[in-house]
Parts: sequence; structure tokens; C-alpha cells
Amino acid sequence: MRAHSNFRYEEVANLIAGLVDSGTLSPGSRAPSLREISERQKVSLSTALQAYRLLEDRGVLEARPRSGHYIATRPAVQLATPTISDPPKRATPIVIAATLLRLHHSSADPRLVPLGAAIPNAELLAAARLDRFLARAARTKGTAYNTYALPKGDPQLRQEIARRAMRWGATLSPEDIVITSGCMEAITLALSTVARPGDTVAIESPTYFGLLHSLEVLGLKVFELPTDATDGIDLSALKRVLERRSVKACLFASSFNNPLGCTMPTEKKRKVLSLLARHRVPLIEDDITGDIYFGSERPIPFMALDRHANTIIYCSSFSKTIAPGYRIGWMATKSQAHLHSALERKLAFTLSGPPLLQVAFAEFLSSGGYDNHLRRIKRVFEDTLGQMSRAVERSFPEGTKVSRPAGSFVLWLELPKSVQTAALFDEALRNGVCFVPGDMFSASRRYGHCLRLSCGHGWNERIEKGVMKLGKLLSAAAARR
Amino acid sequence: MRAHSNFRYEEVANLIAGLVDSGTLSPGSRAPSLREISERQKVSLSTALQAYRLLEDRGVLEARPRSGHYIATRPAVQLATPTISDPPKRATPIVIAATLLRLHHSSADPRLVPLGAAIPNAELLAAARLDRFLARAARTKGTAYNTYALPKGDPQLRQEIARRAMRWGATLSPEDIVITSGCMEAITLALSTVARPGDTVAIESPTYFGLLHSLEVLGLKVFELPTDATDGIDLSALKRVLERRSVKACLFASSFNNPLGCTMPTEKKRKVLSLLARHRVPLIEDDITGDIYFGSERPIPFMALDRHANTIIYCSSFSKTIAPGYRIGWMATKSQAHLHSALERKLAFTLSGPPLLQVAFAEFLSSGGYDNHLRRIKRVFEDTLGQMSRAVERSFPEGTKVSRPAGSFVLWLELPKSVQTAALFDEALRNGVCFVPGDMFSASRRYGHCLRLSCGHGWNERIEKGVMKLGKLLSAAAARR
Repeated sequence: MRAHSNFRYEEVANLIAGLVDSGTLSPGSRAPSLREISERQKVSLSTALQAYRLLEDRGVLEARPRSGHYIATRPAVQLATPTISDPPKRATPIVIAATLLRLHHSSADPRLVPLGAAIPNAELLAAARLDRFLARAARTKGTAYNTYALPKGDPQLRQEIARRAMRWGATLSPEDIVITSGCMEAITLALSTVARPGDTVAIESPTYFGLLHSLEVLGLKVFELPTDATDGIDLSALKRVLERRSVKACLFASSFNNPLGCTMPTEKKRKVLSLLARHRVPLIEDDITGDIYFGSERPIPFMALDRHANTIIYCSSFSKTIAPGYRIGWMATKSQAHLHSALERKLAFTLSGPPLLQVAFAEFLSSGGYDNHLRRIKRVFEDTLGQMSRAVERSFPEGTKVSRPAGSFVLWLELPKSVQTAALFDEALRNGVCFVPGDMFSASRRYGHCLRLSCGHGWNERIEKGVMKLGKLLSAAAARR
Repeated sequence: MRAHSNFRYEEVANLIAGLVDSGTLSPGSRAPSLREISERQKVSLSTALQAYRLLEDRGVLEARPRSGHYIATRPAVQLATPTISDPPKRATPIVIAATLLRLHHSSADPRLVPLGAAIPNAELLAAARLDRFLARAARTKGTAYNTYALPKGDPQLRQEIARRAMRWGATLSPEDIVITSGCMEAITLALSTVARPGDTVAIESPTYFGLLHSLEVLGLKVFELPTDATDGIDLSALKRVLERRSVKACLFASSFNNPLGCTMPTEKKRKVLSLLARHRVPLIEDDITGDIYFGSERPIPFMALDRHANTIIYCSSFSKTIAPGYRIGWMATKSQAHLHSALERKLAFTLSGPPLLQVAFAEFLSSGGYDNHLRRIKRVFEDTLGQMSRAVERSFPEGTKVSRPAGSFVLWLELPKSVQTAALFDEALRNGVCFVPGDMFSASRRYGHCLRLSCGHGWNERIEKGVMKLGKLLSAAAARR
């Protein structure tokens, strides 16, 4: 479960901390005895003791004389959650491309502590089983697939995706699906299908800079909606903009908005859909992290809540859960007009994806085991989010607020207003740490005092030191003001 | 060499016919004796005799009493070459997308004789060696490459491509190169870098429908230049359009225009470049089939002829020579501004290609053997073009003209004006044959009496029957008028 801990006692400590973060062990309750830990985790009593001492140091456990260990009564993370956003009340053109290229290069630099790009660590993803399917496909099906795929992509893969969508209540046919080069191509195709240069699209604020970049390249303007770190966009703001302005489409996360981590409750999603139906505005939904939920239920995508669903274009990929390197995403829609238009655009840009990767992926999915894989990485991400929140609590400036995502693997931090995170980006790089400054998440360059941390590399000493170092830099900056 | 012949004597006959088409055996000269054929080709005397009888039937050889066999004194193909095109003298918007999707689906139908899409047959490409590099990379490097590639693509692959470019005289750095999803993404990125919706781009006429489709999707207009099947565009027409109109870019083939097969001579290319330099118009060059030349010298791309070269964007891919299924193409430019803008666009659309395919391809290239592979498929394509031209001569309506490409693997046919090939497309499909109607190759839907035949599947009985069947349908149509 923990790929990067150096010592067994750290592993045990992280396990307990994870149980506390997820609520399995509640504040004030008695912790498992050292003997229980020793037996269940197959470690010596002294290792168990070492783990508990570490947890005491971290404030997760309290030792009570003659009574054993208890879960600390304060909540694991005491930081407040970020305040609801307050974006501008007009449409904004976007200029974000230049910074983006720099960020991509920093993210690829192995010398930096990788708190920047939200790409899961490849060792943590452990996709060797998938790679074996590819190796076999290359050996046995290379000739059969050395051609262009159908424009929609490999039929078997589309069938597997349609089957998985059934579980969350969508009745998709393989013919409703187009395989894309990651979720990014899906969203860009969807956007260029429903909007023309100069049109306005309503989005969450803050939102993923990659989306802003696509909107910029397509020449679209955005209307940024106030978005709460707990339950998503402000409905009345959406209502106002739909009534007063010409909005060509909405682009919302189905789950775990990047960077806020928030998910709209199902009832709120229904309200959004009825508002959009009334104004005949299509919805592009980004469900790229929907499978990485920590609770018992997967967030239900808009697609599964709309009876007609023919104004929804659903976009997702496997890049966050197992194979960023395979570049396999998809879009799905019940609208034949949108599907046809997106396909035409796909032909002009990439023609088709590499069919061998698609067929290997289809065979991997149909062989089972992907769900076990998901369970494993969800545990790692949930645990890492907890650990990182605690490290932030220990080292970041007083007044820092942090998100409490119920899925995915990024944290959104709101710092004291005086701290400008973009100004500290270069200093952080020089200190060996990469992160994403807050102003990257807004067309209007708001959120200058915020930042996003990725938990995609699991928790280990190097990551912890990186977070602490960043906290130190930010605290010094806060003190300077 | 010949993957699809059913009998050894056919193989031998095709070999001789290929030597005639390529000029190795010239008309009127004595053919190798049956004994020589028997020894060199390791066949029995009776097989050699069977082969020569077939060649007599086809009119390739003539038997002279007591003197043996001679190469027939008429040229192998007597049909005239197509006349220079006469496109409209104004810029045209494009509407081609709908037909394109239908064509893509027909091309993927294995029941049809594949004379449509210009995709080489996978068995003929015989890319098993490349696939083994992929299988090995998947087994040993899956984890290392399960991430996003650098925006420009795998550095080793870019280096291999730069090295190959050195051979035809371009001094490219790996940093000048961006790996793309085939040549199509390269050209679309290049076009969107130099032109905005509503702008006009000058192109050859006829030109590949995929390019017209990209231009359409990008909202660009085209000015179609008269283009000769022998030496390419009409220079004076280019001069006039540059002087009188606002042309934002030119998009020309470096070699073997698809569908005409023509290549501008090097001196003409220099004149084009000096014209473009005078008017400060950038050139996008499509060199996708440049490596498939039948003569002794590779056509020199524009890129290698321009001292400054910073107004040229070079586009190519490996899709026509070995791996359509790998979807690996590239663009190269010395212009930092164009490179940067193309990269930003690439990030918005596909982020990066699958790095595992790129590294496998780089290792395949660096291991050597690609040049032998090229020599082998060039022989097959050249031979097939000759065979198909002869079959056209035997079966197509009187007055049919056919191109004489010195590379690549498509034939362009001009039929009597009364024949409308688009009207016969469905009938051909019903008769089990796919081809591409001529009007697909022009924004102004000219060339209704033309068609393109692909020779990408080599020569065999099924292909021959398909050509003959098509000839019959066209002859019947010609007779009806």
C-alpha cells in the first residue's frame, strides 16, 4: 500500500493516520493496543511502539497514563476550509499559455519534489499488468492493428467503457463513445463542438488551468462562477448568468473539482440540469477523477441524472487512475449532432489514436482486476491527503486554510492575503520544490494567495520534507509583509 | 517482396514487370533467358515459362521466333498523363467533412477491395521488428514511461529524426522538432499557428482531402493553384495570387503530391521559396511520402533549400512507410515563434503522445534496418503502380489518362468528362470495390471525372479483379452518356 516509506514503523504509523483521517478511528476513541497492532500488522512490539511514538509526535495519538493510547480529541486537521470564491462578474479572455509550458517542464524535472502537476507517480500506479497486455498485443496483434483505428476508436474498448458506465447508471452504447487522446482532447473536442471563437462558456472558479488553456487556444471567453470548496458552484450565480448573458455552454466537474476537491451533491446536480434545460445550454462534464472516491458511493455524473442527456457531453480518461502514459480518454454523448461534429474535428486533428494501446487496454479491463487496483490507489491517495494536510498544519503560515477533498489527490490551500504564491514559484524551484500557484486556476488571475499541492506521489520522507520546506518559504514570505 | 501473389510464377512475372516499369529492362531489349530466370529466381524452367506466358498475355513481353523474349517495344503504359488542373480563380470555403467520415468507414471494411484510403497494407509493411521493440519497451520500461511525455515528445526519437533529416541536407536540432499524432496533427498545428479563421491558404489542386478537411475545420479558405501532374504548381499563378491577395500561408507537398504524384524540381522549389520570401508568406510543407522515392535521389524538401528556413514548417510521419498504427508524426521549424505557438496548441488538444510508443520507435530507428525496410516497400509500391497502370489500361474507358508517379503509392486517373466518379461510388461499394472520387480532392469540387486508386496493398489477384471490375463499371457509365 505504501510504496515510499523507508521504515516499517512509518508504514504502520501512516496506516493508523489514514484510519483516523477517513473517520474509521474517531477522535477520543481508544487506539488499537500495541499487541493488536503487532499481531495484525505482523511487526514486533517495539516497531509498534515506535509507530505510536511517531503518531504522538504528530499529534494524531495521545498517550494516557495507565490507560494506553487514544485518538487525539482535536480533529486530525484543524485548518479551516477555503472560503467560497468571488470571481469577476463579467466574461474574461484568458492568457495562461506561457506559464503553462514552464509548469510542464518543471513537472518533468525529477530533481524537484513533485507537488506540482496532478500526475500520479508511476511506481504507485504499478501498471505492470496493463503493460504485459500491451507487450502481448504488440507481439501477437501488431500486424492486425498496424492501421488507423475507426474514427470512434477500438470497438472492444468502447464496449468496456460503456459497461463500466452502466454501474453508475448511464445507459451508454459503444456507439455513443469516442476514444480520445486523454480527457484533454475529449474536452477540447467538446468545447469546439458547442462554441465558436468569441463565445462565452461558464466554468467553476477556481478551475483546472489545463481547461483554461484549452478555452484560451479555442478563443473562448469564460464566465467564472463562485464555487464553494464543499458543494461546488453557486446556483443563484449560475441562474443569473444564464438569464442575463449569452452562455454557449457550461463546463463543470462531475466530481472532485480540480483544485478545490468539491463535488456538487446529487440534488444540486439535478437543479443545475433543469436550469440548463430551461435555457437550452449544453453541459460538458469533466469526470476524470470520478473513480477516485473515498466514501462508499461514487459521485453520480450529470450524464446519469438527465433523462434525455442529449445536451450533455461527458469526458473522462484513465490518466489519473492507472495510465497517464497510454493517453486514453473518451467523450460520450447521446447527441448525434455533437458526436458527429466532434468526430469530424478529431479526424482533422489526430485522425485516430494508436489502436494497439486501445486494444491492450480493452483486454486489461475485460480481464478484471482494475477495481482492485482502484481500491488500492484510493487508499494511498486518501492517506496521502491526510498526511499532507497535517504537514501543512505543522509548517504553513498561521491562517492557512485547506480543502477536505473526498476524492482525487490534490489539496487547495488558501494563505493569508499578503502572500503571493506566484512570486514564490521560482524561489520554490530553486529550493527543489514544485507546486502550482493559485493564479493559474483563474482566467481573471484571482487566487494569488492560494496554491495547489498534488498528493499523486504518495507519502514519504522526501515529499514530507518538500511540504515542510514550502511551508518555511511561505511562512517567511508571510512574515515579511 | 510480393506478399500477396498466389503462385510462384505470378511472383516471377511481377518481378520482371517491375523491372520493366522502373526502366531497368528497357523496351526492345532482350529479356533474361528462361534459364537465367530459373537459376536466379530458384524456380523450375516450366515455372519460368509460365511466368513469361503471363507477361506475353499482359503485353509486357514479346516472343520472337528462334530468338527468345524481348521487352515489348511500346512503353509499359501508353495512357496519357492528366492535364494541368484549372481550379477557380478565387478563394473557396470548404465542405467536405460529411463524405470524409463515410470514406473512413468504407476504408475499414475488409470486404471491400481496398483501392480507397492511401494506407499501406499491414502485412506488406511487415512491422514485426518494430512491434518487438514495443513489446520489450512495455515489459522493461512501462513504469518509467507511464507519465506524460515532454510537450515536444521523447528526446531520443527527436534526435533520431534530426539525424535522418541531416541526410537530405537539413540541419535540424532535436529542439526544433515536435512529435505529433501523425502528419495530420503536425499540419493542423502548423495551419492554426500561421492562420486564423477566415484567412486564405494557397494549396495545390488537386490535393489530399484530409488537408482540405483540416482547413475546413479550422475555418480557413483556400486558393487552389493549377498543378501539373509532372512538375507541380503553376509558378505564375502563385506569383499572381501572392501579389493580388492576402494569402496567410502556402501548403505544398515536398514530394509526390497526393493524389497527382508530382514533385516540383529542386530549381522550381527555390523559385517558390524566393517568391514566398519576397511576400513574407510562410510555407507549410507536407513531406509524408518523401522517403518513398523510386529514383536514385530523394526529393529535397523545401526546408533543406532555404538558408534561413524560419518561415518553413516541415511536416511528416512514419504512417506511410511502416507504422500507421503507431500514430507518430512530427513537425519541425527553425522559427521559435511558430514552434512555441504550435506547442501551446498541442498542449490544449492532446497534451502529449504515448511515450512508450515513441521510445520504442526511437530504439527501432537507432537499431538500423529501417532503410532496408524502405528499400523493400519501395520496390513493392513501384511494382504495384506499374501493374495497376497496366490493368487500368486494359479495362478503363478509352481516353482515360493516368499519372506516372516517381514515388509514393497512389494513381490519379482522369476519365472522359462525361463520367462522374462520385455518382459511381455507391455502385462500386455494392460491387465490393472502394476508391476515392475525384471531387474529394478539391474545395471547389472539381475533378468530378477523376479518381484516385491506392496501390498500398501490393498487387495480387483480388486487387487486379477489383481494378478490372471498377474499369467495367466506369466503361459502362461512359457508354451510357
